[in-house]
Order: sequence, then structure tokens, then C-alpha cells
Amino acid sequence: MDQTTTSIPFAIVAIFVGAKLLAELFERLRQPPIIGEILAGAILGPALLGWVTPNPTLSVLADLGVIFLLFRVGLEVKPHEFMSVGPTALAVAVSGVITPFVLGWGIMRLWGEPGIGSIFVAASLVATSVGITAEVLAARGLVAQRASRIILGAAVIDDVLAFLVLAIVSSMARAQVHIAELVLTTLLAAAFTFVVASWGSRAVKQMFPRVRRRLRTSEAEFHLALIALFGLALAASYAGVAAIVGAFLAGMAFSESMEPRVTLLFAGVSELLTPFFLAGIGLRLDLKVFTQLEGLLLAIVITAIAVVSKLLGCGMGAIRLGWADALKIGAGMVPRGEVGMVVAQIGLGMGAISNRIYAVVVFVAVMTTILGPAILGLVWPNSPEPRQDEPAAAIE
Amino acid sequence: MDQTTTSIPFAIVAIFVGAKLLAELFERLRQPPIIGEILAGAILGPALLGWVTPNPTLSVLADLGVIFLLFRVGLEVKPHEFMSVGPTALAVAVSGVITPFVLGWGIMRLWGEPGIGSIFVAASLVATSVGITAEVLAARGLVAQRASRIILGAAVIDDVLAFLVLAIVSSMARAQVHIAELVLTTLLAAAFTFVVASWGSRAVKQMFPRVRRRLRTSEAEFHLALIALFGLALAASYAGVAAIVGAFLAGMAFSESMEPRVTLLFAGVSELLTPFFLAGIGLRLDLKVFTQLEGLLLAIVITAIAVVSKLLGCGMGAIRLGWADALKIGAGMVPRGEVGMVVAQIGLGMGAISNRIYAVVVFVAVMTTILGPAILGLVWPNSPEPRQDEPAAAIE
Repeated sequence: MDQTTTSIPFAIVAIFVGAKLLAELFERLRQPPIIGEILAGAILGPALLGWVTPNPTLSVLADLGVIFLLFRVGLEVKPHEFMSVGPTALAVAVSGVITPFVLGWGIMRLWGEPGIGSIFVAASLVATSVGITAEVLAARGLVAQRASRIILGAAVIDDVLAFLVLAIVSSMARAQVHIAELVLTTLLAAAFTFVVASWGSRAVKQMFPRVRRRLRTSEAEFHLALIALFGLALAASYAGVAAIVGAFLAGMAFSESMEPRVTLLFAGVSELLTPFFLAGIGLRLDLKVFTQLEGLLLAIVITAIAVVSKLLGCGMGAIRLGWADALKIGAGMVPRGEVGMVVAQIGLGMGAISNRIYAVVVFVAVMTTILGPAILGLVWPNSPEPRQDEPAAAIE
Repeated sequence: MDQTTTSIPFAIVAIFVGAKLLAELFERLRQPPIIGEILAGAILGPALLGWVTPNPTLSVLADLGVIFLLFRVGLEVKPHEFMSVGPTALAVAVSGVITPFVLGWGIMRLWGEPGIGSIFVAASLVATSVGITAEVLAARGLVAQRASRIILGAAVIDDVLAFLVLAIVSSMARAQVHIAELVLTTLLAAAFTFVVASWGSRAVKQMFPRVRRRLRTSEAEFHLALIALFGLALAASYAGVAAIVGAFLAGMAFSESMEPRVTLLFAGVSELLTPFFLAGIGLRLDLKVFTQLEGLLLAIVITAIAVVSKLLGCGMGAIRLGWADALKIGAGMVPRGEVGMVVAQIGLGMGAISNRIYAVVVFVAVMTTILGPAILGLVWPNSPEPRQDEPAAAIE
């Protein structure tokens, strides 16, 4: 009962307040508030003020934040609607992985980077960060739209593919590629995703009320759903996909049987934690390397490649839905996340890329998360139903 | 998007699942579920299985958990009702600080401990951990009762007194006691508490709607309340009281103007985080030192002193309300928290107490948090309104 015991870390307060202040500012400027929250991290972090530095606690809050965010988005997706867009989502994901890889590799070779370094940079451009787009879609009440479901489906498949790319790159880093092992783990990841997406909802509908009836503690529904969420997030990472994919699938499994009251309890948690995920991205930005013109130039070129290649690649995969939807889907897939940074870290560790190139990759990952929502706002201007009203309706 | 990036730590899942399983078990055994959650930490932690060890991330979740818990309890306390029990609460707090100190010091001297070591052990028995009792009162819907308000009031005053004791002990550790400084910081702590308790609610009622109207982002009410909570928790620790006292005062300030929807968003957060606070207490238990009979005996004797001295001391302070209420209040003040452990740590650091005595103090702190709710259940058997129904009513 003194500041040496239970205290609240200043960094937590600063990040939350900063994120919400800038979200409000961006809302007033009619820009996506999410960009404000990412920038709050960049401003408070090493890139500018240096008041807050990335630390394990903020990382855990950020990781929990994106897990609850994806769960909440999953709650709004009905499994049969999700499965119905499967083929299109697969085309979007595959084309959206190949295009950035090829373009990224090409530009790096032209820039004079050696072959292995070019492969690492190319691989870092592959994986979409679904959290950012999910937040934009949820905040604007667009999750139920067809284009949104394709984006979410493609992002889940993209995650399995990104895992494959990461596994190949890691094997290359150890200079030993085991094809059989790669195939096996990829199949496991794909099977996990498919099984939970297909039968999760039915399992929840059958098991949940039965277990619930036997429990006597208060708020048992919420606790059971939390345990299911944690369990699937853990299982997903053991199966070789991201914890957030497990969280999304858990949300989808509950989408047809969650009570409004429990949905609101989850909303409280994700409203608290999501800013740590968003600001956490900006927090990783470090601009020290860009004092030299060449680094800055390269960063801008690769950012452009990163944006254009997903717009083009993912758009092509969905072109049969018409230009408008193809553009929305392409824009939704632009944000890159931590996977790119992990790939770059491996490359840095094995000496395939320099510190400068590593900083460029981090810069690109952060910039795409800022540009993605901005482009999405341009190509998908009207929101039929803002989030403000939607959970209020859920109470009744 | 791989287990190396966004993943959910196993410790978090294990603690949450374990706490909720044991809470359910204790509910079925008609014991306070809170004891189950504390024991879950002891079972998973170093004391027994060793699957989870205390780490900074779990600590932050625990600290956030108790902050949200106290905020939620504060929401149920109206300021004028709180101030009306002031004199009794003051008597309870003062008598409840002096009695354990004197009894603790006496028994240690009789046990043959040197003077300075005895003072440290005595000081470690002073501070009540209000979080535990607050959770019991909230879970059983007893917060609005007079005895509960006296417990909460006495716990807040106790916190200011405990700060004074801690400051004196710390000064002794540095062998320089500055009386003027001690008086100044104590006055600051008392003034902070008094000012926020007196005018916080009025300030919120006047300012909050005005600020709220100007904000455009969704869930702005919840974010504003969160910022107020974080701000007061930080301010409290700067003013020399615990962050949780700030959180309690913040809750009280909002108690007359919080919307049911926002209350439910807060409930989601505290339902998620409270188990980390509770299990975190059990996690600190280490039984290795008790292989020798003398250590075990001393631990049992001091635990008994700790329980009896608060029952007696706090009960005496409230004796004019009758035996029944005096007993309830005494039982509510039994749990000791981290302050005792901090005092013992300082004593350990300056060589005034041994490792064995330190382990005893930690054991006593954990045991009182388990015995407190058990005694409270005995002396306060009926719950007029379980929590299950209460927030459900809040939706309507």
C-alpha cells in the first residue's frame, strides 16, 4: 500500500492516454483513429520523445490486446458465411503472398543487394497483419460485409502461408531445409484452422450450455468463454499458426451463441487492451538510421512496393468481384505486422542483412499499418453502421 | 503470426484456468471461492508444482487486477455514506494498527529475537490488504452495508498509517529519521485522500458530462473513466498512498454518475484480471523454510497473533456498534498484503531479520489472506444478494 508495492506503471498510463488523445484528434480530422493510436506509440517511443520504451510488460498487454481484438471480430463472423467465401479468400491469399515476394526480391536485386539478403527482405513483405484491418472493420461496423469476410478469410490463410515462408527462411538460416518436416507442420496448421472453423461453432453450441448449467460461480459464462479463447490461442500457436488465428476462430465458434451481456464484458477488455497493441506498433519505430539519404530512399521505395504489391496481388485474386471490391480487399491486406520483423531479425542474426536493412524492414512494417487504414478509408468511404450504436443495440 | 511473435504466455492461461477451477470447487464446498483462487497460485507456484513462477508480467496483471477491483468496489460506495462512518473507521484503523504492532513486538521479544528484528516483524503485521476483503464483500453483494463501509473506510485510513509505518521503518533502515519529512508526507497523503473523497464525486458530476459531450470517438465514456482511474491511481502513489486507494477513490467519485453499460465494461476487465491478483498472492508462498520444526512453529504463532490482533484491535474500535458488527469488521481487516512483505524485505536488506524470518512474514501474509475470508464467512454467514444477479439488474 505504498508506491513500492501496488503501483501502476507510468508507461501504461502514458500509452493509454496518448493513444486515446490522438484517436480523438484523428476522428476530428476525419482520419482513421487507429492511425492516431499507432502514431501515439511513435511519438511517445524512441522515434520521437523517448518517454516510453518497448518492454516485456507492454508486449504482453499488446499481445493480449490483439488476441481479444481478433476474438471480438470473430464474434461478428458466422462460420457458414466465412466458409462460403473460402475459394476467393484462397485466391486472394496465394496471389497476395507471391506478388510481394517477387516484386520485393526484384527491387532488392536491382538495388544491388546480394541474393540471400534479397530473399529475406522479400519474405518480410509477405505476411499481412490482420489485427489492424480487423480493428478498422470492427470500428466501422463493416465486418459482416462480403469484402470484409474475404479479407479475414484471406488473412487466416495468409497466416498459414506466412508460417510456411517463415519456416523455410528459418531453415535457410540454419542452412538445413527439411522438406518433409515443412510439409507436415504446414498440413498440421492448415488442418487445425480448417477443423476449428468447420466444427467449432457446433461444438460450442452443444457443449457450452451443458457445461454452463453445472457451474455455480458467478460470471461462469464469461470465464468459460475466456478459457476457450485462451485454450484455442495456445493450441493455435502449438499447431504452428498465430495465437490470434486461434482467437479469431474461437470468436467465430461463439458467434452464434454468445449472450449480449458476455459480449459486453469482452468489449470492456478489448477496449482497454487494444490501444497497447496499436501504440505498440508505433513504439517499435526507430528513425535514427534514416539520417542518410540512401536509407530513407530505400525505405520509401520498399514501402511503396509493399503497398502496391498487396493492392495488386490481393486485388487480382478478387478481381471477379469487380474493381471496387478488389480494391477494398487489396487495401485491407496492406498492413504488415510482426512476422516481417521476425523474418528480418532472423536475417540479421545470420548476417544475411545489415542493421540498416533491418531498420528499413521495421519502418516498412510500421508505415504499411498506417497507410493501410488510410487507403481503406479512401476506397471504402461510407460506414453503414458505426460501432458506437452497435454494442448498445446488443444490450437489449 | 507464429509462435515466436504474438503468443499468449502459458503462465497466464495456467493461472486463469487454475484459479477459476478452484473457485468452482470452493463454491461447491460452500467455502469462499476467493480462497480457491489464492490456493491455485500456491499449487501452481513454487510452493507445490512449480509450473509457474512469479514474474514481472504476472505482477503487472496482478497490480492492474487489484486496481480495477478496488475501482469496482468504489463504484458501489456513495461518498456521503462513506464520510458518515468516518469517525468509527478512524477508531478501527488506529486501534487496528497499534494492537498488532504491540502484540507482534511482544511475542518476538519473548521468542528471543533482538529489538530491531522484533520491530520489523511487528511493523509487517500492521497493514491490512483491502483487496481481499473488498472482493469478498463485492462478490457477496455486501458493499452497501454499514459494516462494509466501515471496513473500507478503515482500510483507506489504515493505508495512510501503514505508509507512515513504512516510512519510519525505511528511515530506520537508512539510520536517519527526518521527523519533519515524515510529518509532511503523511499530511500530503491524508490531504489527498480527504480531498478526493470529499470533492471527487462533485467534480465528476460537473466536469464529466461536459467533457463527454465534446468527444467524438466511440466508447469515450469508458475511456474517460479509465483515464480518471489511471490518473488517480498514479496521483495516489505520488502522494504517498497506494495506487489502489486512488483507484477506490476514483470508483467512489464515479459512483453516482456511472452508466450501467460502462459499469459492465469495467466488470469485464476486473473479471479477467482479478484472478491474477488473487493467485499472485499464493504464488509468493514458499514452504522450503518450514522443514525445521521451529520455523513452522513460529509461523503458526505469528499467524495466530496476526489474526487475533486485528480481530481484537479493529473490533475494539467498533465495539459501540455491538459484538456482531465489531466481529465482522475485525474479520474484514485480517488479510495482510504486500506491505508486510515490503517491510520484511527492507529488514532483510539491512540485516535486521534473517531469511527464515522473512519467509515467516511472507507465510503470515498469505495465510491471513486465506483465513480472513474464511473467518468473515463464519461471522457474516448470510448473503442478502449474490453478485450473479446484481450486474444483471444493472443492465435494465
